[in-house]
Amino acid sequence: MAHLPPVDTFDYIVFGGTGDLTMRKLLPALYYRYRDGQIPDDSRIIGTARSPLSRADYQQRAHAALGAHVQPDALDDATVRRFLDMVHYVSLNGAEAESDWPALKTLLDAAPATRIRVYYLATSPALYGQICENLNTQGLITGQSRVVLEKPIGTDLASAEAINDSVGRHFHENQIFRIDHYLGKETVQNLIALRFANPVFERLWSCDAIDYVQITAAETVGVEGRGAYYDRSGALRDMIQNHLLQVLCLVAMDPPVSLEADSVRNEKLKVLHALKPIPADDVAIYTARGQYARGTIGDRTVGSYLEDLGEGVTSETETFVALKVEISTWRWGNVPFYLRSGKRMAEKCSEIVIQFKSAPWSIFANRPEPNRLIIRIQPDEGVMLSVATKDPTPTDSLALRQADINIEFEKAFNVRYPDAYERLLLDVVRGDPILFIRRDEVAAAWRWIDPIEQGWRENKAPLEPYAAGTWGPEGARNLLSQSGHLWHEDMKK
Amino acid sequence: MAHLPPVDTFDYIVFGGTGDLTMRKLLPALYYRYRDGQIPDDSRIIGTARSPLSRADYQQRAHAALGAHVQPDALDDATVRRFLDMVHYVSLNGAEAESDWPALKTLLDAAPATRIRVYYLATSPALYGQICENLNTQGLITGQSRVVLEKPIGTDLASAEAINDSVGRHFHENQIFRIDHYLGKETVQNLIALRFANPVFERLWSCDAIDYVQITAAETVGVEGRGAYYDRSGALRDMIQNHLLQVLCLVAMDPPVSLEADSVRNEKLKVLHALKPIPADDVAIYTARGQYARGTIGDRTVGSYLEDLGEGVTSETETFVALKVEISTWRWGNVPFYLRSGKRMAEKCSEIVIQFKSAPWSIFANRPEPNRLIIRIQPDEGVMLSVATKDPTPTDSLALRQADINIEFEKAFNVRYPDAYERLLLDVVRGDPILFIRRDEVAAAWRWIDPIEQGWRENKAPLEPYAAGTWGPEGARNLLSQSGHLWHEDMKK
Repeated sequence: MAHLPPVDTFDYIVFGGTGDLTMRKLLPALYYRYRDGQIPDDSRIIGTARSPLSRADYQQRAHAALGAHVQPDALDDATVRRFLDMVHYVSLNGAEAESDWPALKTLLDAAPATRIRVYYLATSPALYGQICENLNTQGLITGQSRVVLEKPIGTDLASAEAINDSVGRHFHENQIFRIDHYLGKETVQNLIALRFANPVFERLWSCDAIDYVQITAAETVGVEGRGAYYDRSGALRDMIQNHLLQVLCLVAMDPPVSLEADSVRNEKLKVLHALKPIPADDVAIYTARGQYARGTIGDRTVGSYLEDLGEGVTSETETFVALKVEISTWRWGNVPFYLRSGKRMAEKCSEIVIQFKSAPWSIFANRPEPNRLIIRIQPDEGVMLSVATKDPTPTDSLALRQADINIEFEKAFNVRYPDAYERLLLDVVRGDPILFIRRDEVAAAWRWIDPIEQGWRENKAPLEPYAAGTWGPEGARNLLSQSGHLWHEDMKK
Repeated sequence: MAHLPPVDTFDYIVFGGTGDLTMRKLLPALYYRYRDGQIPDDSRIIGTARSPLSRADYQQRAHAALGAHVQPDALDDATVRRFLDMVHYVSLNGAEAESDWPALKTLLDAAPATRIRVYYLATSPALYGQICENLNTQGLITGQSRVVLEKPIGTDLASAEAINDSVGRHFHENQIFRIDHYLGKETVQNLIALRFANPVFERLWSCDAIDYVQITAAETVGVEGRGAYYDRSGALRDMIQNHLLQVLCLVAMDPPVSLEADSVRNEKLKVLHALKPIPADDVAIYTARGQYARGTIGDRTVGSYLEDLGEGVTSETETFVALKVEISTWRWGNVPFYLRSGKRMAEKCSEIVIQFKSAPWSIFANRPEPNRLIIRIQPDEGVMLSVATKDPTPTDSLALRQADINIEFEKAFNVRYPDAYERLLLDVVRGDPILFIRRDEVAAAWRWIDPIEQGWRENKAPLEPYAAGTWGPEGARNLLSQSGHLWHEDMKK
């Protein structure tokens, strides 16, 4: 149990306080930070939702959430009790002006007006504007207030701009924290350290040495209960527009001038602006999309996407997408970045693969494989560098053998790795937006995504079925093979 | 127990067959290779020495040597018996023309004339010429004969040339195998694989990315029984002229055109020719030398070098040497190579440290340490790359922590690592001289070493005492500190 420098006292007001995200992620994350001494005892966590719960009811739910989502050895009765003492509840429909705002106001006004307030919007994005409007009308937005927006922010550029406008009417951009939990992951943040604290990597970080890059976020789960939401989104909007493009930005960006948030975000924005557009007419060249059919994961037979959605439903929504992305800069000329994400894949795995160029010439009988740097985001965050070494078998030639130089951070440092939310929730309190997405980034990402969606709507690339438990449709492989490239799992063969 | 492709049948004739090297290294090495199926059963190992031993006596000594120097689980009775069946003995003074050469000749002539013959000279180098002369006179040098020369080949350029002349009178250069067991070590050979099979390393391998290089061979032992020999040699001639300069060549050489022996040796020779001379007058600038005084190794108090030599002896011989070596090429401009070797040091350790340049600019609060690639030759052969990563502690800044990406080959591959001699002895049978030193390399090395010895003889650099169990005299540290550099053990502080 570490004792880390505490943040300032705060009130965290969560809209959607009874929801899944709050229970699974937000409360456990705040608990861990409290346990490590980073949260002052006079802070408050105020759940709000429409359900008519008492404070005691809500504390009981919170208690159950900790029991389910915190490691048992991190829970001790005294700490849990003190943590629950910070937890409050207000029954409130944030989207309605006539709801019980006075109750929330009374509670908040009990604290000094200078206290940091975080409004965490864990609701449907359709409600963000109304909630902010109500917060403003009720006089709840102080100079020390911040608002956290969960994804998805829109489904295209126009709807994203509408949401950002509606929130921006009441909060300054520097008060708005658009959360992308991928940016809170240790390995993703570690990209900044690996690249800009290690000249051995940064010297290699360009088209001079790198052949191509892959960024994968693969899940084995299907849509399960989320079908209704997912079917309106699809893999491109659900995963690529935000998470994978953000990771791409961190891989591809130039060195920022400093670690000031805007310095880093300016560099990310430069990358987004440099993404070579994929016009609707070219989607068949640069994209592959698929929808999972029946298949087998492990030894379990699982149904198709359509079966998961429910009887009699048809859908053209992609549960898999792969993209060939080009970045129009000197650094990245001729280095494709392949992005892909899918549900019901063969493995749960999020990783970045940096495939270096082959040796220009080989003096060895068996040609060495190109070096490969693998940055695993999950599971088991870590970094692996594959190198060719001498085969130690004492034969007559200097034969090569591939070896993986491996570092699993959690094991190496012998520490528990904090969940992404632990870092991000307190960054909001600290007022540090470095790991949050600025409005112009959201817009730039959608501006690049929209023509792809349009091309698909116009059916200019086929929606291919793929068996659950595989690495997606044939089109994903073709996307690489035309350049002589391979997805990571195919390299291992 | 692997079964590897066997070499051709051979006769190995060892002069100095009762000596320490034969018992500790040569017989065990041949045993291991026999056990793995690489040596045909009709091969013979013929020890020769002056002692009047019977074949059975010698087989008994060989048996004892295996018991002492082979891992118990590698010994099984049947294999040992078959191995000892290959062992013969001839009582012979190789330096005398009138010795019992007919006995050796009869034994050798029992095999086909085309059989590979290896004459292994594990005697004093002063005898090499006479032994070769006698071999020739007795008609024992066939077209399939090779001769292996152990170090030291001379004590300066003139004496080395004399030895090489005397051997070269009877053997062609391509029949002469000058052994340097450092070149047989897996990690040293691995340098070739690491550098020329991994573009990620070779791209960094120059003054653009590298700040300085250290090559250390440190022993904790003193001179013990070898005082008489050692006192005429000293650390510079015993370790630097051969082992460490060879390692330096492999670190510094340009990519060879192929793995043909002469292709590699030509590149090594280029490095030796590019060593910036250290004239006698400059030894105080580029060298430090020391002699160990009483001190403590672990919890044991040990005597001084002079005490180890024996009562009433004085000596100016260095038991420690450190050199600042410059290589006059585009690749290595302004990159000092620091070499050092010593007895009675703090640790037994042979390693290469590649210290990369610092990041040109740091955006982090705590400045990252430069990257460092450590190639450990012994103990625990392996490669380690130190990198700066994100400290996983969830504080408010992106703080750095150093991590070591580690690969210990023996563990990684889960194989027993062959001793250097196992590889080298069979390379002689194969006729592959890639890991042996060509005559012009020996000469080039001595040509560079001689002026240093001269400067020392003229006392132009002090012989500094250092306490046993330390890393050598103050002068060694000064050699680096004037350039702002540190020895590896000082970096860790």
